[in-house]
Amino acid sequence: MSPTITEVDVYDIRFPTSEQLDGSDAMNPDPDYSAAYVMLRTDSPGGLAGYGLCFTIGRGNDVVAAAIATLRPYVVGRSVDSVTGDLGAFYRLLTHDSQLRWLGPEKGVMHMAAGAVVNAAWDLAARQAGLPVWELLAGMSPEQLVDMVDFRYLSDALTRDEALEILRRAEPGRAARAAELRRHGYPAYTTEPGWIGYSDDKLTRLSKEAVAAGFRQIKLKVGGDLDDDLRRMRLARDAVGPDIRIAVDANQRWDVADAVGWMRALAPFDPYWIEEPTSPDDVLAHAAIRAGQPVPVATGEHVANRVVFKQLLQAGAVDFVQIDAARVAGVNENIAILLLAAKFGVPVCPHAGGVGLCELVQHLSMFDYVAVSGSWDDRVIEYVPHLHEHFTDPVVMDHGRYRAPAAPGFSARIVPESLADYRYPDGPVWQARQELTR
Amino acid sequence: MSPTITEVDVYDIRFPTSEQLDGSDAMNPDPDYSAAYVMLRTDSPGGLAGYGLCFTIGRGNDVVAAAIATLRPYVVGRSVDSVTGDLGAFYRLLTHDSQLRWLGPEKGVMHMAAGAVVNAAWDLAARQAGLPVWELLAGMSPEQLVDMVDFRYLSDALTRDEALEILRRAEPGRAARAAELRRHGYPAYTTEPGWIGYSDDKLTRLSKEAVAAGFRQIKLKVGGDLDDDLRRMRLARDAVGPDIRIAVDANQRWDVADAVGWMRALAPFDPYWIEEPTSPDDVLAHAAIRAGQPVPVATGEHVANRVVFKQLLQAGAVDFVQIDAARVAGVNENIAILLLAAKFGVPVCPHAGGVGLCELVQHLSMFDYVAVSGSWDDRVIEYVPHLHEHFTDPVVMDHGRYRAPAAPGFSARIVPESLADYRYPDGPVWQARQELTR
Repeated sequence: MSPTITEVDVYDIRFPTSEQLDGSDAMNPDPDYSAAYVMLRTDSPGGLAGYGLCFTIGRGNDVVAAAIATLRPYVVGRSVDSVTGDLGAFYRLLTHDSQLRWLGPEKGVMHMAAGAVVNAAWDLAARQAGLPVWELLAGMSPEQLVDMVDFRYLSDALTRDEALEILRRAEPGRAARAAELRRHGYPAYTTEPGWIGYSDDKLTRLSKEAVAAGFRQIKLKVGGDLDDDLRRMRLARDAVGPDIRIAVDANQRWDVADAVGWMRALAPFDPYWIEEPTSPDDVLAHAAIRAGQPVPVATGEHVANRVVFKQLLQAGAVDFVQIDAARVAGVNENIAILLLAAKFGVPVCPHAGGVGLCELVQHLSMFDYVAVSGSWDDRVIEYVPHLHEHFTDPVVMDHGRYRAPAAPGFSARIVPESLADYRYPDGPVWQARQELTR
Repeated sequence: MSPTITEVDVYDIRFPTSEQLDGSDAMNPDPDYSAAYVMLRTDSPGGLAGYGLCFTIGRGNDVVAAAIATLRPYVVGRSVDSVTGDLGAFYRLLTHDSQLRWLGPEKGVMHMAAGAVVNAAWDLAARQAGLPVWELLAGMSPEQLVDMVDFRYLSDALTRDEALEILRRAEPGRAARAAELRRHGYPAYTTEPGWIGYSDDKLTRLSKEAVAAGFRQIKLKVGGDLDDDLRRMRLARDAVGPDIRIAVDANQRWDVADAVGWMRALAPFDPYWIEEPTSPDDVLAHAAIRAGQPVPVATGEHVANRVVFKQLLQAGAVDFVQIDAARVAGVNENIAILLLAAKFGVPVCPHAGGVGLCELVQHLSMFDYVAVSGSWDDRVIEYVPHLHEHFTDPVVMDHGRYRAPAAPGFSARIVPESLADYRYPDGPVWQARQELTR
């Protein structure tokens, strides 16, 4: 008999990263990397459970936790099999509650909360199957995979039949690509050298270290001050040489004219892409920026849902699609986005970092490689070396590549000690900080 | 000396409207109209306070309340004058918190919460000045008004200078139009006849009653079943005759091809507009729907922010802009949207209904008439006759027109008895329902 999901535990976990300026950029000067963390508990004697999370940067992490709690009635008391046996229906259930949908629709806090629970259900399904999520996905038939997708609002760009065709085209090579992945891992790039709060010396040193560690691409945060950016870009280019890609990231700092002017000025240093030049809602501005200057455009970490990704592709507004594992409504919506990107022939280079985003999103890129786009050309997953020690199955970086995870699940389970220590506001780490500021 | 804001009280107020199918449509079959209600308390001996709200349709109202609570540190302890003396700075403070911004940015739960607090601050300012909000706004200089706007992400469509020019152009006629408003009120239309859960008889009866009451426009909910819609549209047209406008509203039900086909079928009954044909995020789909069938397109009640409104206008995707007083970040963001609409020459016909939305949004249309567009041609404010009895200064409908409010404030103060009775889940109305279902 199938075990039952007995509770949705929600944790407000925050790490005081603002102390080190790790993660600082032009829009986010002092983030405290945080997770609204979900555990789907079951009554299985073996302790079967599902783990998921939503990433935030501090304040408001409790609001996401409250949003997750509103989804309890859809989960608690259900048999594990009824959830994991039809993850497409489960995803639609969480995103189609007519009253909760009013709070978006399909965007912001409520949508991120649904994503955390959907991802936890995928973790549960993968643990049950004894497979990492990427292998669980890569083992599903094209018909099963399209059943995971909500095609509402997509049909003017991608129909169910077109999605099926994309997946069927990639079927023959699946086994060979999975073997490649296990052998070589998936290409990564590192954002480590380029946080805006780092000194020039630190930037130069970390850029050189990144190349020595095997990375072929690094990323710099820009958009604070043009003279600073020109100097930092020159330092980085000098440090890594002409053959290493340097992407730049403005974190939504600009209007169209700013972005065009700034990127024309940086263009001589050969930036590989300009990421988030402006508002993530602004499809038309991204298209104008792409047309107005020579550097390819990337965006996605803050794109609210599949409908906005669809338009970015329809409008020819992006050269790279940057999915995020925990911004949209989980694996299901990301399958839709991977299919849209494949339809338009645009490579997917995920956003990661934060808390657990590397752990989660590697599975989606690996699934894309095996069963959707069938390619890793021009594709890289972001890598940031922080906070992995808090996970039971942390990512493994091997000469600038993500090693393919072998452990069952979605890799987003946090170790019990960290859950206890960093719980906000009552965990010992935060209690100690409160006493310091008293 | 200025009084101090001593507390932000937040109430979770819900009305069990699902019992009557009031407010039912193709996407929202059983809404319980609700408000996350805000009171900015002060230590003024006269009891000065500011009232605002965010409208939701039931579940999740507590999540918005939790989001409002995160904004307390920006409000509590500040002098009233420091807030009401620079409402532009106050709005930017609430929407630019870098950590909270991550939860949107500028969309969904967190943005709606900011809107509730911003609107409460405008209410406070208007009470302090002894003016209704529309008069407070209409008395501000063009320079003061543009200082209320956040032009970030707008400059490719509307600059500060262009906004100033629009406002200066409307300056000469302000006094005459304000006098017109006080004499004649502002035109309204009613959605009362057309809720999807109503019987044919009720639809016919209410349509006739609406015309008898002086309304020149009614609205029907559509998108459930085409045969039903054809029958209901015929009934309504027969009931009101050829000269009364009948708008239809699909509440985001369709993809592009559905919308085009459905509206071509309904076109012979001369619908005045098709409202929310598809996802509110889908600028390109609205443009395609507008191009693909003959009925004018309206949208906005679920449009997340000024950036999406900007694109709807840039793309020529809408014939009517439907602002909502409590979806975006309050008065300030709606000033930006009114200015954008004026720039593009598109009339603004606000969404209202729900809880308190009529009370709030009438002020914005009246301000638009007096000081922005300077016109009420082709402009109507939605009216729904429910729940006004819960407000201290309810809207007054006079021969199909909103009478200009004269009482100081933003008209969104709920009477103390209703706050007590409908408090969720502990108020007596909800306690009694819980006992019934036990």
